[in-house]
Amino acid sequence: MRVVVPVSGSDPKTRLADVLDADERLAFTEAMLGDVVETLAAAGHAPEVVATAAVDCPAPVTVDERPLDPLINGLLADAAGALAVVMADLPLLSGDAVERLFAPDADVVLAPGLGGGTNAFVCRHPDFRVDYHGASIRDHRRIAREIGADLVEVDSRRLATDIDEPADLAEVLLHSDGRAADWLVDAGVELAFEDGRVGVTRN
Amino acid sequence: MRVVVPVSGSDPKTRLADVLDADERLAFTEAMLGDVVETLAAAGHAPEVVATAAVDCPAPVTVDERPLDPLINGLLADAAGALAVVMADLPLLSGDAVERLFAPDADVVLAPGLGGGTNAFVCRHPDFRVDYHGASIRDHRRIAREIGADLVEVDSRRLATDIDEPADLAEVLLHSDGRAADWLVDAGVELAFEDGRVGVTRN
Repeated sequence: MRVVVPVSGSDPKTRLADVLDADERLAFTEAMLGDVVETLAAAGHAPEVVATAAVDCPAPVTVDERPLDPLINGLLADAAGALAVVMADLPLLSGDAVERLFAPDADVVLAPGLGGGTNAFVCRHPDFRVDYHGASIRDHRRIAREIGADLVEVDSRRLATDIDEPADLAEVLLHSDGRAADWLVDAGVELAFEDGRVGVTRN
Repeated sequence: MRVVVPVSGSDPKTRLADVLDADERLAFTEAMLGDVVETLAAAGHAPEVVATAAVDCPAPVTVDERPLDPLINGLLADAAGALAVVMADLPLLSGDAVERLFAPDADVVLAPGLGGGTNAFVCRHPDFRVDYHGASIRDHRRIAREIGADLVEVDSRRLATDIDEPADLAEVLLHSDGRAADWLVDAGVELAFEDGRVGVTRN
């Protein structure tokens, strides 16, 4: 199965700007991408990275400046067989989670993200297309229904946890020991304990 | 196996105060509790609710005013066999997620929550105790290690999504159709689309 990991190489992760400057956000993006690519490879897949600008990464990289929707919909339109798309900002990804994503023999398998996103999918139906704006998980459920595809959703916290906001960095420190976690520790990002959920601070 | 669902019946869910008043927060807490209890019962368990004050709920309720740590540690100390504790604010809970929580035959099974919490556990070891302050998932890993218990963590978004903050309400609307979701719809809470993750607004 073709497995594509799209990533922004141009000013990525702007919602982390309160904690990381622009160069750091690119380096951290590459660390997360490295985790995702290595986890996919260890699970027996051969991920291809498609980036909007050059990125450093332990997998083949194609630069393609198209926005996410036309990029992925072009891949879906051209797909000769099954296509999987896994986002690059999932440093909690584990081999078990990858296995659970690829296990169901359904036309469309969706991995919901926090806040209405769709963090990964597997498509075996010629007519499925993506729409990542708004609450994409709802749109993707609707699109699957409209084309008569059978749909399975994967219930995984590790697939659901995309890293977009400063509070998400705590999830990396709490639940990962890969490149992204190491990068954060080296950058002086630490857990901060307040009432409620754990956040981060930087020294 | 004994399955306990602890819940606060006295001024619960204060971090939702920007969206719901005190009476509403209690009613919404009861709706979430109803979802959790019904899902556990449908999966073949007989949940017992332990509440700090009387709550309305489709399961037997015991009122116990102790804080969470001494309450749960008392149950653990008195347990004759396995004990499961499932938090009451998990309205996304599904039968599959319940099955995955109870499936591993490990001394301690932990279901991490967002932000470092521990949203559910199953304990089959006489010496395991809880500490819900701070990043409890780290403390629970450490405690399991110190007593020589074998530990499994369940990777479930549905078990991880506890509802504490206004943004969490979006997860209920996106991924559940139970009592809590119905309650939010009736209260005029709706998804709000901005940049990034989906939030909620109230009409």
